[in-house]
Amino acid sequence: MTQSRPDALPGDPRFFDRQGPFSVAELAESAEAEIVGPETAAGVSLRGVAPLQAATSQEISFLDNRRYLPLLAETKAGAVILASAFKDKLPEGVVGLVSKAPYLAWARIAARFHPVVSARAGVHPTAWVDESAILGEGVEIGPFATISARATIGDGTVIAAHAAIGEGVIIGAHNRIGTHVSISHAILGDRVTLYPGVRIGQDGFGFAVGPAGFETVPQLGRVILEHDVEIGANSTIDRGSMRDTIIGAGTRIDNLVQIGHNAQLGRCCIVVSQAGISGSTELGDFVTIAAQAGLIGHIKIGEKARVGAQCGVMSDVEAGADVIGSPAVPFREYFRNVAFLRRLAKKDVKGES
Amino acid sequence: MTQSRPDALPGDPRFFDRQGPFSVAELAESAEAEIVGPETAAGVSLRGVAPLQAATSQEISFLDNRRYLPLLAETKAGAVILASAFKDKLPEGVVGLVSKAPYLAWARIAARFHPVVSARAGVHPTAWVDESAILGEGVEIGPFATISARATIGDGTVIAAHAAIGEGVIIGAHNRIGTHVSISHAILGDRVTLYPGVRIGQDGFGFAVGPAGFETVPQLGRVILEHDVEIGANSTIDRGSMRDTIIGAGTRIDNLVQIGHNAQLGRCCIVVSQAGISGSTELGDFVTIAAQAGLIGHIKIGEKARVGAQCGVMSDVEAGADVIGSPAVPFREYFRNVAFLRRLAKKDVKGES
Amino acid sequence: MTQSRPDALPGDPRFFDRQGPFSVAELAESAEAEIVGPETAAGVSLRGVAPLQAATSQEISFLDNRRYLPLLAETKAGAVILASAFKDKLPEGVVGLVSKAPYLAWARIAARFHPVVSARAGVHPTAWVDESAILGEGVEIGPFATISARATIGDGTVIAAHAAIGEGVIIGAHNRIGTHVSISHAILGDRVTLYPGVRIGQDGFGFAVGPAGFETVPQLGRVILEHDVEIGANSTIDRGSMRDTIIGAGTRIDNLVQIGHNAQLGRCCIVVSQAGISGSTELGDFVTIAAQAGLIGHIKIGEKARVGAQCGVMSDVEAGADVIGSPAVPFREYFRNVAFLRRLAKKDVKGES
Repeated sequence: MTQSRPDALPGDPRFFDRQGPFSVAELAESAEAEIVGPETAAGVSLRGVAPLQAATSQEISFLDNRRYLPLLAETKAGAVILASAFKDKLPEGVVGLVSKAPYLAWARIAARFHPVVSARAGVHPTAWVDESAILGEGVEIGPFATISARATIGDGTVIAAHAAIGEGVIIGAHNRIGTHVSISHAILGDRVTLYPGVRIGQDGFGFAVGPAGFETVPQLGRVILEHDVEIGANSTIDRGSMRDTIIGAGTRIDNLVQIGHNAQLGRCCIVVSQAGISGSTELGDFVTIAAQAGLIGHIKIGEKARVGAQCGVMSDVEAGADVIGSPAVPFREYFRNVAFLRRLAKKDVKGES
Repeated sequence: MTQSRPDALPGDPRFFDRQGPFSVAELAESAEAEIVGPETAAGVSLRGVAPLQAATSQEISFLDNRRYLPLLAETKAGAVILASAFKDKLPEGVVGLVSKAPYLAWARIAARFHPVVSARAGVHPTAWVDESAILGEGVEIGPFATISARATIGDGTVIAAHAAIGEGVIIGAHNRIGTHVSISHAILGDRVTLYPGVRIGQDGFGFAVGPAGFETVPQLGRVILEHDVEIGANSTIDRGSMRDTIIGAGTRIDNLVQIGHNAQLGRCCIVVSQAGISGSTELGDFVTIAAQAGLIGHIKIGEKARVGAQCGVMSDVEAGADVIGSPAVPFREYFRNVAFLRRLAKKDVKGES
Repeated sequence: MTQSRPDALPGDPRFFDRQGPFSVAELAESAEAEIVGPETAAGVSLRGVAPLQAATSQEISFLDNRRYLPLLAETKAGAVILASAFKDKLPEGVVGLVSKAPYLAWARIAARFHPVVSARAGVHPTAWVDESAILGEGVEIGPFATISARATIGDGTVIAAHAAIGEGVIIGAHNRIGTHVSISHAILGDRVTLYPGVRIGQDGFGFAVGPAGFETVPQLGRVILEHDVEIGANSTIDRGSMRDTIIGAGTRIDNLVQIGHNAQLGRCCIVVSQAGISGSTELGDFVTIAAQAGLIGHIKIGEKARVGAQCGVMSDVEAGADVIGSPAVPFREYFRNVAFLRRLAKKDVKGES
C-alpha cells in the first residue's frame, strides 16, 4: 500500500484542519521560547509541524531526547524546538526555539497549527433527544445519539455519533463525548473528554452468596468525573455501590482501563492502558499507574507514588514511593532481586557442568 | 466540584427510584434477621440505606468487617445489620439487625428500597425490528436498537438503546441487554444481564497458515449463556469453532474479560475484570478467577478451584486448589517462595557490604 | 437448558448457511489431500463438518494432535482429515483424507460447506450516509450505520449495524466492518476485517505537563491498516502523533488488544488477546505476541520473534528469539530459573525442618 510511508508528513489534510502559516516570532511567543539564529530568523514563515527526519524548510520540528541528536544533525527542518543544552548542535541554517520545557512548547505550537475543532452547534436530524433533556448553548449532537430524560448537556459540548446519555446524567461545558460512549448514573465537570466506547456508570461487580446462587447487591452510588478528566477508548468505570466512584480533576486514563466501584482517584493522576483499579481503592494526587498494573481493592496509594507496568499491588503504597513487580516491591529492591537471581542461576549452571 | 462529596448519601433520586419508608420489622423479615434493641425498635421507620459514616437516624447501615468497628462506634444510623459477634458493639440507641449472612441481608434490604426497574413495555419509535423477529410479552426495546431477522426475545426482557441483536439469536425471558451490546450466533437463557458494550458470538481467533498468509478457519459453533449469567462492560465472548462456548448458569463475569472459543464455564463461577480464558479451556462449577489472571487453552480447572490475581495458568488445576503466580503454583508455595527470596536477597546484600 | 449440549453438531442452521453435499473426491481436491480407503471412497457424499466425537457417517472430521487418537478410534465420522503419520489408525470403514497440512485442509473444507456470506448490496433505510461519501459497487450498509463526509467505501465492503465511519476515512474493497466499530483518521486496505466494538484512529495518550495540569499534545498521524488485517472485538488502535500507526498486511490481532500511537507492526504478525503494545514500538514480520503480554514504548522486536503470555518486554528482542517472563528473558533461561528456584526453596524447607 502506497499509503504506508513512514515518512508521511503529519496533519494529512483529509483528516486535519490547518491554520497558519505562522512566523517563527509568532510561534516563539506561543511557546514562550527564545529564538536562536540569524536576525532574519524571527520572520521565517512556517506552515506546519513534522518530525526531524520528515520536516522540510517549511516545517518546525523538535528534539527532547539525546538519542535523537543524529537526526538533528541531518534535519532539513526550518526550525527546531529544543532545550538550551542542545542549542550548539543545531545544523547550519536551522533556526532554534530554545525552551525550558520543549515538549510543552511543542504541544502548544502543534495546537497552534491544528487547534481542537469547535462544536458545530446543532442536533443531527437522526439523533433522539428526550423532550425533558436540557441542552446548553452551542451544543453539537451527532447522528443517532440519544439524550435521555432529564439529562443536562453544558454549553459547547459535543456528543458524537451513537453516544448514549442516560436518564438524569449531568454533563458540564465543553465536554467531548466520543462515538459509542455510554453514560449512566454520572455527573461530569467541564472540559471532560471521553474517547469512543467508554462505559461510565454501569453496575459494579457486587453480589452476595444466597441459598440459590449469587444475589446482586444494589449499586446505589454514582460516577463523578471532575473537570478536565480524559478517559481512553473502551475503558470502563463502574458506579459506586454505597459511595461515589470519583475521578479527580485533570486525571488522564488511557484505553481499556478498568476502574471498580467506589474507587477514588485524586487530581492529575495518570493511568496507562489495560491497568485495573479494584473497588474502594484510593489514589492520592499525581499518582502514576503504568500499563497492565493491577491494584486490589480497599488500599491507599499515596500522592506522587508510581506503580510500574504489570505490577500487582496488594497493600498500601506510601506517598512518593516507586513500586514494581507482582507482588509489588520498591523499584530498587525489584531490580536488585532480578540481578541477584540471574547471578545465582548462572552459578548453578556452572556448578552442574 | 461540589458534587464530589465522599459523604453523599447513596440512592441519589436523580438516578434511583426509591420505595418505602419501611419499618425495622418489615426489613428484618426481608433479611431473615433478628432485631436487637428496645421494644419500640421494630416500629422504627427507615427511608433508605447508607454507609456507617454517612447514615442518619433515618437510614439503615451494615457492618461485615472487623476493621470498620471504629465507624460502628460513631455511626448515627437508625439501624445496623451485623453478625451476632458484633452485636455488643452497637452504640446506644442504634437498633441491630443480627444476621448469619449480613452481606446477603444487606443486599436484600437495599433491593427492598431500590428494586430493579421493570421493563417499560414497548418498542421505541426509532428502533428497528425485523418483521420476522418474535417479541414476547412486555418486552422493552430502546432507541436505535436493532432486532434482526428471526431473532426471538423472551417476555419482560429489556433491550437497551443501540443494542444489536443478530439474525436468529434466541434471548430468554427477563434479560437485561445493555446499551451498545452486540450479540450474534447465540442462545441466552432467562434472567441474563449483559452490561454495556459486551460482545457475544463473534468469530474466535482461528486461522491456519497457508501458502500466501493466514487463512481463516470457519467458526461454526455458538455461544450459550445459561440462566442468570451476568457479563460486565466491554467483555468479549467468542463463539465456538466446532463446539459451543458455554457459560454455566449463575456465573458472573466482570468487565473487560476475554473468553475464547469453545471455552466452557460451569455454574456459579466468578471471573474478575481483565482476566482471560483461552480457547477450549474448561472450568468446573464454583471456580473463581481473579483479576488479570490468564489461562492458556485446552486445560481443565476443577470445581471450587481459585486462581489468584495476575496468575498465569499453564496446566490443569485440581478441584478445590488455590493457585497464584506466573507460572501458577499453590498459594502456600508462592508466598513461601516470595519470603524465601526476600531473605536470600537480604543476606546477599549483607554479604557484599 | 437443553441447548447446552457439548455434542451439538457445528453449523446450526439458525446461524449458518450450508452448501453441499459434496463428494469425498470434491473435498479432497479443495484440500489438496489424498484419499485413503476403498475404491468407492471417492464417491461418498458428505453434508458437513463435525468434531470426531460428534460426527456421523455424513460428516467429515479431522485430527491434528496425537492426544485425540483415542477419539479417532471411536469416531463414527464418514471421513477424517489427518496427517500421513496417523493414517494407519483410521478405524474400519472411515475414509481418510491425508494432508501435509491437515489444519489448513480442514479450514478449506469447512469453508466449502460454510463459505463467508457475501455482502447484500444496498444501504439500509435507517443508515445515515453523508452526500459527499463515495460508495463502491455492491457495498452493504447496515441499520443505523453512519458514513461521514468524504469517506470512501470500496467495492463489496460490508459496514455492519451501528458502525461509525469518520470524515475522510478510506476503506478498501471487500472489508467487513463489524457492529459498533468506530473508525476515524484511518486508511484501510482490502479484505480488512474488524470485529464488533473495535476502535480505530482515536487520539493517542499524549500530553505535556503544563503549569496548570496536563496539556494535550495534538495527535496528527493516522492509522494505516494494510490488506488482509483482522482485528478482534473491542481492541483499540490509536492514531499516530507525528507519524502513522501501521498494521502490516495479513496481521491478525485478537480481542481487547491495545496498540499505542506510532506503533508499527510488520506483515503476518499475531497478537493474542489482552496484549498491549506501547507507543512507537516496532514489530518485524511474522512476530507473535501471546496473550496479556506487554511491550513498553520505543523498542524493536525482530522478525519471527515470539513473546510469551504475560511477558513484560522492556528492551529490544532479536529476530527469531523466544522470550517470556516479566522482565522478559529467553524462554530457556526462564524455565531454568523457575526450576532452579523450586529446587532451592525445597532445600530451604528441608533445612528448616
